[in-house]
Amino acid sequence: MNFSKIAIIGLGLIGGSLALAIKQTGFTGHITGIGRREENLIKAREFGMIDNYTTVHEEGVHDADLVVLASCTGHFTDIMNSIKTGLKTGSIVTDVGSVKARIVQTLDDMMPQGVSFVGAHPIAGKECSGIDCASADLFRDSKCIITPSAKTVDHAIDNVIELWESVGSVVLHMNPEEHDRIFAAVSHMPHVVAYAVVNTIMDVNPNILHFGGTGLKDMTRIALSPAELWRDICSSNKDEVLNVLKKFSSHITALIAMFENSDWPGLEQEFIKAQEARKLIESD
Amino acid sequence: MNFSKIAIIGLGLIGGSLALAIKQTGFTGHITGIGRREENLIKAREFGMIDNYTTVHEEGVHDADLVVLASCTGHFTDIMNSIKTGLKTGSIVTDVGSVKARIVQTLDDMMPQGVSFVGAHPIAGKECSGIDCASADLFRDSKCIITPSAKTVDHAIDNVIELWESVGSVVLHMNPEEHDRIFAAVSHMPHVVAYAVVNTIMDVNPNILHFGGTGLKDMTRIALSPAELWRDICSSNKDEVLNVLKKFSSHITALIAMFENSDWPGLEQEFIKAQEARKLIESD
Repeated sequence: MNFSKIAIIGLGLIGGSLALAIKQTGFTGHITGIGRREENLIKAREFGMIDNYTTVHEEGVHDADLVVLASCTGHFTDIMNSIKTGLKTGSIVTDVGSVKARIVQTLDDMMPQGVSFVGAHPIAGKECSGIDCASADLFRDSKCIITPSAKTVDHAIDNVIELWESVGSVVLHMNPEEHDRIFAAVSHMPHVVAYAVVNTIMDVNPNILHFGGTGLKDMTRIALSPAELWRDICSSNKDEVLNVLKKFSSHITALIAMFENSDWPGLEQEFIKAQEARKLIESD
Repeated sequence: MNFSKIAIIGLGLIGGSLALAIKQTGFTGHITGIGRREENLIKAREFGMIDNYTTVHEEGVHDADLVVLASCTGHFTDIMNSIKTGLKTGSIVTDVGSVKARIVQTLDDMMPQGVSFVGAHPIAGKECSGIDCASADLFRDSKCIITPSAKTVDHAIDNVIELWESVGSVVLHMNPEEHDRIFAAVSHMPHVVAYAVVNTIMDVNPNILHFGGTGLKDMTRIALSPAELWRDICSSNKDEVLNVLKKFSSHITALIAMFENSDWPGLEQEFIKAQEARKLIESD
């Protein structure tokens, strides 16, 4: 790895797992943990994720070759404002946010001379959050999307790719806008829908949710995801998620019409279409 | 168990698993398998599920104390028409259908003098279907809903309860209409939604489904369920499913309005509400 000093801001599920995973590669450099809550940072040191820590952002980054933004995306701008004058020339800033276009544009513009930003989105997660859920193999065999912009420097991209490959990820490239369009469909919309399925059932009768079998449990597991995180993802990717939600709403309206018209062959065709498509990712 | 001769019509996932599970209780009686496809019945005998088989329905049921309808619910009426004159006086007919009101009413009316019908719905399933997916422990610790009507005879109910308890199910009682209202919400609507989520993503771009992580896979696993089965469930429970789908559609419309108005605190409240409700069934 071309980094000897790494600073990770935000040691939750993703930041903590990344720190653990880097340590497990045999990394001989130094990892600084940065966060607001000291008890979390103490835990991170006890878990062997980090070598030292600070709650003062600008202190933690001053000698880092790589700074990883792994806090809530809603805090990125404030964090950048507090660290930008302290960043080392030649250092690289990267992030792990689930939405890219707005973040890449904002952070590209905030980088001081001689510092490069590379947007990244590791496709790894659990419904549980926080440092206690972190694990060294979270990224093993998972995808990580790198989203370079026109401003992104090649050697910075290469170094960030190497980082993610070293922890077991398969790295793919997308431009930030393409990323947000795709993930609005395959991740953001399904999360919103899962929350809505649970709330609809509670509306029908607040005491029946437990009658659902494993099918309902699997289907709504993502409704356990942190509400604040998903609010931020939705607001950061508003236009794309809205676009997909409207398409989804049209599908539901069409299905309702099939029920009303007792168009059971039509309904079966919709089910078959979905079943065939879903089979394609079964063995992934 | 108060049965010595059991006939099971339809040896797929549920019928086959029930046969295996009954055998595993140490049942010393006789199980006849009845179905349309002889190769499936031969397999059932090879798997040790049944003692003999026939493709002629009326032949298979003539000496049975219990007849289990485990084929597609769409065939129940035809099957009853072919077996009703051959049923033994004092025998019991039961089923395993996922929708109850219409089935219970129809079958109650078709029972010959001296034969009792008891509707049942074991809440167990997998996305795979057919005899090869059958397993003896499918019903272990799962719920089975018994749906007696005003016509159902008490001793028949007791015997069917004993059957399901012997294979490990926890038996609950509901009236058929209550059952259909509840399962429209916790099972039928979520299946329709899962199919719609997959079709929406394919609409956005047919090549992106594999970018979804484990969250999307879990959420859409039920879209692998047999299309014909779910078409029949939807048509048999049309009014209740339609009612829940309309409620769900209103939720989606309200969420779309929150996006359009950038009402992020409102959106977060919806997410929190769902998350709290979903937590209640996590440890079930």
